[in-house]
Amino acid sequence: METMKLGREITGDGRFVRQPNRFTERIQPDGPYPPAPGRYHLYASYACPWAQRSLIVRRLLGLDDIIGVTIVDPIRDDKGWRFTLSPADRDPTTGAAYLSELYLATDPEYTGRYTVPCIWDTHEKRLVTNDYPQLTITLETAFAPWHAPGAPDLYPTHLRHDIDTMNDRLYSGINNAVYEAGFARSQPKYKEAVTRVFTTLDTLENRLTHQRYLHGPHLTDSDVRLYTTLARFDPVYYSHFKCSLRRLTDYPALWAYARDLYQHPAFHETTDFDHIKRHYYITQTNVNPSQIVPLGPDLDWNAPHNRA
Amino acid sequence: METMKLGREITGDGRFVRQPNRFTERIQPDGPYPPAPGRYHLYASYACPWAQRSLIVRRLLGLDDIIGVTIVDPIRDDKGWRFTLSPADRDPTTGAAYLSELYLATDPEYTGRYTVPCIWDTHEKRLVTNDYPQLTITLETAFAPWHAPGAPDLYPTHLRHDIDTMNDRLYSGINNAVYEAGFARSQPKYKEAVTRVFTTLDTLENRLTHQRYLHGPHLTDSDVRLYTTLARFDPVYYSHFKCSLRRLTDYPALWAYARDLYQHPAFHETTDFDHIKRHYYITQTNVNPSQIVPLGPDLDWNAPHNRA
Repeated sequence: METMKLGREITGDGRFVRQPNRFTERIQPDGPYPPAPGRYHLYASYACPWAQRSLIVRRLLGLDDIIGVTIVDPIRDDKGWRFTLSPADRDPTTGAAYLSELYLATDPEYTGRYTVPCIWDTHEKRLVTNDYPQLTITLETAFAPWHAPGAPDLYPTHLRHDIDTMNDRLYSGINNAVYEAGFARSQPKYKEAVTRVFTTLDTLENRLTHQRYLHGPHLTDSDVRLYTTLARFDPVYYSHFKCSLRRLTDYPALWAYARDLYQHPAFHETTDFDHIKRHYYITQTNVNPSQIVPLGPDLDWNAPHNRA
Repeated sequence: METMKLGREITGDGRFVRQPNRFTERIQPDGPYPPAPGRYHLYASYACPWAQRSLIVRRLLGLDDIIGVTIVDPIRDDKGWRFTLSPADRDPTTGAAYLSELYLATDPEYTGRYTVPCIWDTHEKRLVTNDYPQLTITLETAFAPWHAPGAPDLYPTHLRHDIDTMNDRLYSGINNAVYEAGFARSQPKYKEAVTRVFTTLDTLENRLTHQRYLHGPHLTDSDVRLYTTLARFDPVYYSHFKCSLRRLTDYPALWAYARDLYQHPAFHETTDFDHIKRHYYITQTNVNPSQIVPLGPDLDWNAPHNRA
């Protein structure tokens, strides 16, 4: 099993700084990668919060038949994410055994971590993007002609500035901050990150006490981004990443909000706590050398949320 | 910093089996080690649940002037427990820099882990016992002539059978079971141990819903033994030892019971959460290689317990 290779992402003073995304082409009309049904294929892990965002949005917008998906095994080995959940342990779309093959087919010089989510262009036979922050926006905008009737508008024009601003706050305040806490290699960098996590949760608790979703009565892209971190909070981040000032379940509004989202099919059908727990606890041996996966916590995600 | 040397205490199938206690002489009248004021010295760590038992009982029984104590540094280095909290980093009683010196002065062939608590005989200049289960009983019985006026009877004759039976259940069900969970090196051995922890807590929750202490209206030796594990449960065992089905604070009766005990001076004056957290998280690098000490959890140990 792999020991996480984070060496290049840990600074001299012990801070985790996530690598930049290598492939940042965009699927957009009038570009070299125009949106089209059946052309693009999504690689994702149920374990990964960045990847689950795209799985949720794809399902919410009814793009299941427009963009194919292959789910990777939650356990990485020393060559990275594997297609061992697919027949004959091969990705049906490309025949690859490892996600790394798609990265190296696109850029033979690539030496970073191989990450999900990423999008493969079946026409050009190359990766277009592993730029997860842009990916949900692309599904919400460039693929609008194929959205299902009645699908929600997750990125409405009049809220785009607010959503972009909130998304930046979510990234630095919690989505990535939990990783900064968990991967820190100095007490001050850990403390700085975990303090930021809980300051952010306190602020969000207050906001969500007064409204159903982050931007009011309608679900948006920001809610998807917050959800995938909240779903992992008590099972993984509280213990494994030492974000242990309070649990999600200690925040009444946030916990009810998370259950409200979970109870949408697009959210709970893409939330696999077994994948989540096995991924973090077995793969990240830099944090958990025993690779033991904890039992619990006992949480009732289907309890009434009373937020409708 | 030391990597925990547990090799000899891990079985081939990944189970943690604690080493036996090497020194099991007893302080008792008519033996080679008769009780006497000022003759014996206790070595203890505020971090260690086995050692805190003796610190609590010594204080509850008013034996502070009868048995001296030296507190070790919560952080062990590769030579074990250190006297770096004492003047000139030396134990004032023996002049030792490390606890290991007392073990090796008593048995030059000793090769096990050097453990607290242990009792040094200042007359014979040797360790008498590191047999922690017997140690509180010794303070409660052999040292009875020196108990303070009004001190509680922690081991009353008519309850001794019940106390002994309960103490055995506490040891296998929770005191040692949390270590079996945390040090397990196979998923089945972990699961077995953590299931035993929560079955025991569930049973104790029921018992303590109906009575103030484990054996009725009066504090006994069993309560001391349960307390030192409960005090460490949410700050350490929940995350670090993966005992994460539920927290102590999720058990209304047990959490109020733990606060009730904490609010006795003998308990809270010997409960040092800083020592506890730094010891487990910094010393046990087999579990926590980053040696980062978590912030939190935020617990109010002084909240009213309403059990009087």
